[in-house]
Amino acid sequence: MSEPEKRDTSPDESAEKGPGFPNGGNPAKTKEDFDLAAIYVSDAQYNRNIYFDTSPQAVSLYLLYNHWLPRVLVYFFILVDMSLAVFEEPAVLPLPTWATMLVELLCLLVFTVRLVHYAKVIPRDKFWKDPKNICIICIVVLTLIDMIIYGALTATNCYALRWSRVLRPLLLVNVTEGRQLRRAFRSIRNALPEIFYVFLLFMFSVLIFSLMALKLLGKRGLKTMDGSPYFTNYLEIVFDLYVLVTTANSPDVMMPAYNASFIFTLFFILYIFINTYIFMSAFLAVVFNNYKKYLKEEVRQLVRAKRHKMVRAFAVLQERREEGGELVVTQANWNQLVRLVQPDISNAHRELLWSVCDDKNQGFIGKLAFVQLADLLNIEVITLKSRPHPLQSICPTLYLSAPSRLLCRLVQHRGFTIMYDVIILANAVFIGLDEENPMISNSEWVFLFLYLLEILLKLYVFEPRSFFSKHSFWNCLSTSQIISTRFDTIIVVSALIATIINSALKSVGGYTSRQILDIVFILRVLRLIRVVDSIGRFRTIINTLIRIGPAILTFGQLILVVYYIFAMVGMELFKEKVKFYDEDSNDPAKAYCGNPLLKGTTFAQLNYCKNNFNNVMSSFILLVELTVVNQWHVLSNGFATVTHVSARIFFVLFHILVVIVIINIFVSFVLEAFYVEYSVDKGDLQTSLERKIEELELAVAQEKLQDNLVNTMETIDNDLGAGQSPTANRPTLMFKIASKSKNSQNTGQDDVRIREQEECLEHRDAFILKGQDVGLCSVKISLRSRGTETAGPAPISC
Amino acid sequence: MSEPEKRDTSPDESAEKGPGFPNGGNPAKTKEDFDLAAIYVSDAQYNRNIYFDTSPQAVSLYLLYNHWLPRVLVYFFILVDMSLAVFEEPAVLPLPTWATMLVELLCLLVFTVRLVHYAKVIPRDKFWKDPKNICIICIVVLTLIDMIIYGALTATNCYALRWSRVLRPLLLVNVTEGRQLRRAFRSIRNALPEIFYVFLLFMFSVLIFSLMALKLLGKRGLKTMDGSPYFTNYLEIVFDLYVLVTTANSPDVMMPAYNASFIFTLFFILYIFINTYIFMSAFLAVVFNNYKKYLKEEVRQLVRAKRHKMVRAFAVLQERREEGGELVVTQANWNQLVRLVQPDISNAHRELLWSVCDDKNQGFIGKLAFVQLADLLNIEVITLKSRPHPLQSICPTLYLSAPSRLLCRLVQHRGFTIMYDVIILANAVFIGLDEENPMISNSEWVFLFLYLLEILLKLYVFEPRSFFSKHSFWNCLSTSQIISTRFDTIIVVSALIATIINSALKSVGGYTSRQILDIVFILRVLRLIRVVDSIGRFRTIINTLIRIGPAILTFGQLILVVYYIFAMVGMELFKEKVKFYDEDSNDPAKAYCGNPLLKGTTFAQLNYCKNNFNNVMSSFILLVELTVVNQWHVLSNGFATVTHVSARIFFVLFHILVVIVIINIFVSFVLEAFYVEYSVDKGDLQTSLERKIEELELAVAQEKLQDNLVNTMETIDNDLGAGQSPTANRPTLMFKIASKSKNSQNTGQDDVRIREQEECLEHRDAFILKGQDVGLCSVKISLRSRGTETAGPAPISC
Repeated sequence: MSEPEKRDTSPDESAEKGPGFPNGGNPAKTKEDFDLAAIYVSDAQYNRNIYFDTSPQAVSLYLLYNHWLPRVLVYFFILVDMSLAVFEEPAVLPLPTWATMLVELLCLLVFTVRLVHYAKVIPRDKFWKDPKNICIICIVVLTLIDMIIYGALTATNCYALRWSRVLRPLLLVNVTEGRQLRRAFRSIRNALPEIFYVFLLFMFSVLIFSLMALKLLGKRGLKTMDGSPYFTNYLEIVFDLYVLVTTANSPDVMMPAYNASFIFTLFFILYIFINTYIFMSAFLAVVFNNYKKYLKEEVRQLVRAKRHKMVRAFAVLQERREEGGELVVTQANWNQLVRLVQPDISNAHRELLWSVCDDKNQGFIGKLAFVQLADLLNIEVITLKSRPHPLQSICPTLYLSAPSRLLCRLVQHRGFTIMYDVIILANAVFIGLDEENPMISNSEWVFLFLYLLEILLKLYVFEPRSFFSKHSFWNCLSTSQIISTRFDTIIVVSALIATIINSALKSVGGYTSRQILDIVFILRVLRLIRVVDSIGRFRTIINTLIRIGPAILTFGQLILVVYYIFAMVGMELFKEKVKFYDEDSNDPAKAYCGNPLLKGTTFAQLNYCKNNFNNVMSSFILLVELTVVNQWHVLSNGFATVTHVSARIFFVLFHILVVIVIINIFVSFVLEAFYVEYSVDKGDLQTSLERKIEELELAVAQEKLQDNLVNTMETIDNDLGAGQSPTANRPTLMFKIASKSKNSQNTGQDDVRIREQEECLEHRDAFILKGQDVGLCSVKISLRSRGTETAGPAPISC
Repeated sequence: MSEPEKRDTSPDESAEKGPGFPNGGNPAKTKEDFDLAAIYVSDAQYNRNIYFDTSPQAVSLYLLYNHWLPRVLVYFFILVDMSLAVFEEPAVLPLPTWATMLVELLCLLVFTVRLVHYAKVIPRDKFWKDPKNICIICIVVLTLIDMIIYGALTATNCYALRWSRVLRPLLLVNVTEGRQLRRAFRSIRNALPEIFYVFLLFMFSVLIFSLMALKLLGKRGLKTMDGSPYFTNYLEIVFDLYVLVTTANSPDVMMPAYNASFIFTLFFILYIFINTYIFMSAFLAVVFNNYKKYLKEEVRQLVRAKRHKMVRAFAVLQERREEGGELVVTQANWNQLVRLVQPDISNAHRELLWSVCDDKNQGFIGKLAFVQLADLLNIEVITLKSRPHPLQSICPTLYLSAPSRLLCRLVQHRGFTIMYDVIILANAVFIGLDEENPMISNSEWVFLFLYLLEILLKLYVFEPRSFFSKHSFWNCLSTSQIISTRFDTIIVVSALIATIINSALKSVGGYTSRQILDIVFILRVLRLIRVVDSIGRFRTIINTLIRIGPAILTFGQLILVVYYIFAMVGMELFKEKVKFYDEDSNDPAKAYCGNPLLKGTTFAQLNYCKNNFNNVMSSFILLVELTVVNQWHVLSNGFATVTHVSARIFFVLFHILVVIVIINIFVSFVLEAFYVEYSVDKGDLQTSLERKIEELELAVAQEKLQDNLVNTMETIDNDLGAGQSPTANRPTLMFKIASKSKNSQNTGQDDVRIREQEECLEHRDAFILKGQDVGLCSVKISLRSRGTETAGPAPISC
């Protein structure tokens, strides 16, 4: 987009700039002004909440601070810092202490530099008031102290402990970019009091039931499977019944009592009903309610902060058109601002946005219209160009001949898709069969040929650039289809390459690499996923699942932080207590995991030796197993046996924190996402959204903004694209703006996305019907809501 | 309430009845009219939807049909019919076949009589159109056929099967009173299509992962714990991975692969993440959304049906006051109607309701005011009378003396409650200690004495009748407290009696019955529950739990129906395949549950022999264990070993139906109940309810009714009670009706209940402050919403 700025688009603009302008008090805006305004807009767009200094130096520093490179570097070094656990004692791949120490020092240096940079950007008092800066300083200082102590102690051969390692994941939370993670932690913190009260009641119930179990069952001289007395120790009963809540020891814990009399099962059934079903549902309910409540609050704050920033940007660029008139921003200033905020924006797109803001075509906009800019920029506009197939230009007679047209029609026919679905299913059967059979292994070539043929046929029928483009026309049906077609091509081509390599290796040396075979298998199996996408009924579900993808990353970070801390503590407590012996080893210690204390325990009997805390990798896998809950009491008892019975506290704490709190928040999140998706998917889109807004009480907050958002935009351009085609670079814009005053305020983003899908469906049919008739629908700007930053589902994340 | 009707309360009433009334067209209402109207109102009140014949004979039959006795009888015989399974082969307590057959015939006769009665009540075409009647006829006929076949086959010593037993629980669903159960089944049926699509996708994912597992792990020659090849059979893998979704075989199924290389754990972690966390949450989300959606729909229909019935009742009793004037119901007719509908209603209560309807005091009411009668009758009005303590009347000087007053203040002090909480906790510790110690067993007498003292002190301070009354003044704070005080008294008295009996037995013969000891223990432990109730923070949670109580009964029936069917099928499939040997038995078959096929299986190793289908009791306990999910694969594999691998289908079906569908509906129900409770509990009650109404889209439907419900009613009566005190039987009614036009329409019931709690709180303080000042606040009518019939939580069940 290096073409000169078209100053002539707004005729009154140059007059406005003149010194003789009526009000005379509008000094030309400096580059600094534009930089500042651009930063405000960009902050509003990405929901950044940094109160930076507005001095020109600080502004340029702030621009650098927000550059992608330092941000990626910080994350890279956090990752390096955290992955040091792989190389430190107890190590997966041991490295000398000095090497890991040096790398850690480097990481600390990077974090310090980043923090100093941040301190230069924001005012001093703000810096010291921000708890996350204090946290980072503490982490860096404590880590340094720990390293010095550790170095001194190891030098004198004393026992040394790297306790500061538990602090590492906190960097992920306290780094400026960790907004979503902080939000997730806040949401947990907010839910904690309510969860705590339910938990107290739940524990009271467990204690009372334990007391009853002790009195009712303890006196009857019953024996467990291994002959030990049954239900005689109160604390053991409490633990057993706590485990029963997680259902992990059901029905084993009940069997001795049941064998004695079936009356006792009533006790256990009542217990399970109250504690597992009622209380566990109550935990989910409490977490879900809190999640919804605070999500609403967070979104409200985000919207307020965004508006505030946009008002500041307006204040920087505002001019008074006439004495006593309202403050406005001219189109020229607006254009310059948008180009600064989004340098890669196309002219057509920018003018489209302007025409949305300036709907009365006055050449300037007021505050209300200006404020919606951040939201408008967040609506991703895709410029799609439908042009003749290259073959048509090269060889029109052949391409437009009757057989060629028939082929096109055949490929575009529904039967073509169905045929390939059948082929994929047949392929699934062949994959399942024994591949040693030469006929079956050769069938793979047939399938590969068929898949390639499909791609080539599609390339023949559809314009190649649109077929491979980032947002291809063919794919505009749904998010899942976008992913599937590109995914498909990649899979087929990779499978082809892998199969060729495999065959080459086989024919050359007779040697077949297991790894390559595995990859080929996985690629073949992944191809099967395509079938799901062609069935319309699954699309809502798949769309929801894809929609929650980005937020799952936040949950991933949350889990990583908790796992890392528990892994570090666990390694210090339990390392080398349980040993794993190789399959081939003949060591008699193998039967009891190298620890005589484990002789005869369920832990050893079930061959759980590899579930240990001997390195960070094993620890993580063990923690996953604990998250899945089943058999966690066996693991917990195993580690309690080799250390002390109080080791169970570690496992119970993990269960409470991860299973009761975090997993429930995750489930709440999925529930909410499905609720939004289903209420949006069905019937009248508008009323559903309206209901959602009202439900979240955003309606009142939004009414103040009074910004009329674009609902449908569409440009019909007679040229073959703006700026790219040299023959015509002034696109004629024809916008259809259906702005509703009532209920689509600010939450419009998702609305836009859905409406766009509807539009797309219509236009796809139109396109197929019209065939080569390019002149009519050549440029189509479809809107797609870009993934926003809140942890919640899209529609309320404005 | 046999006092004569006070005709003089509305002066214009007698004039209205005169034959010379202007319009002249108002014939006196006959008894039949009142009966019919009363039935309509009563049907509206209890949400009965029976289109009965309006002929006088049918109406009186219908009255008989709705009498409590035949209804209870029908439920009793259904219970008898279902409990026949205990006595039939395979029996818990064997009875001869002819005996059970005779009882079953009697049951069938009862059901037929009831059905014939129903057929007489409603029009013939309605009867044959109703699927539930057809169902009952089918069940009766099929059962008869089955009994004949079974009799014939057993007479000829052939193998016979009582297949009609699976039909028995369907009676519970199809009986007229099983409305809530039918609603629950409808809600399941409605959710099924959505669940089915998610399930297909889920199964697709399981199948794809199984294929990958087969190809990646099957070829590596890994061995499971017992040395069999690992992941080589596709169907076995599918079953294993399905079990992994339920987490029941985690981490065991992963261990062989993990022992080979930790890379393979990635496969399992990905699998668990997608299928256990994402898909299982998706199931819950889909069920939850459907539950909310159909709950809304059901409530809307209920409200519509209720209004329809009230309009019909109005049509029966309507009169035209003047030519062309609006149709009205006079107070006399209204009074007679209310007395017919609710014979035990007090005069004060009835006049209160009238004054709510006839807020302009005209002596007649129009349609809109009449329609709200059903809702008004559903609002339980409690007449509370605060009268002087009997001791005060008997011996005023002593009771009002300074020490007595001090005692009253002490007992009413907060410290008194806290002291008793501490005593209860101390008691808990003593219960936990070894009761063989004589000091500790004697301490029980001390605690019993202390509890009795508390009750006596309270009786001294508070008026005994109010202390023991159904809705005591002291208890009006919350539902949970009502239950707790009465509960408390019962528990303490029972514990006292049981302890005395126990001691008597001990001192007489030295013999202590284990059963009596158990009962004493349970009573002692139950006493501890009181502590929870005195902590205010727990009240929201406990109130919610108590509120969902009645609906849990519906779920209980639902589970009973499903369990019964599965138990019947399971008994036919698996009876006597697994045998349980007594603890003392020395039979070598005990080690493998009497079936050599089970030798060496996990089922036998874990001593699960008593988990069998050998009688209906064992079957039910086994099904509970399957519902709890853990180790269900061991049970399933056990029964597959002794029969055929396809027996797993039975267990998988049970899992899908009970765990994926029913338990999720239960969780949805708890989620919704907590949502309502929390949104009502916090902040402005009005807005929360309003939001709830709008969320359920009831707002529009309600606006049409335009009935202004009572929000707060309060009567300050200068007399000491109406009708009961002989000195004054004309209560002066002073109602304060705060009817809001805006947002409390028809959902007002819960609103009323909550407001009442607030009122109650205020008044309780007032009462305590005022001490013996009885004149000021002598009759307080507080409103309590009666448990309504919808399966959903109260506020939306209008």
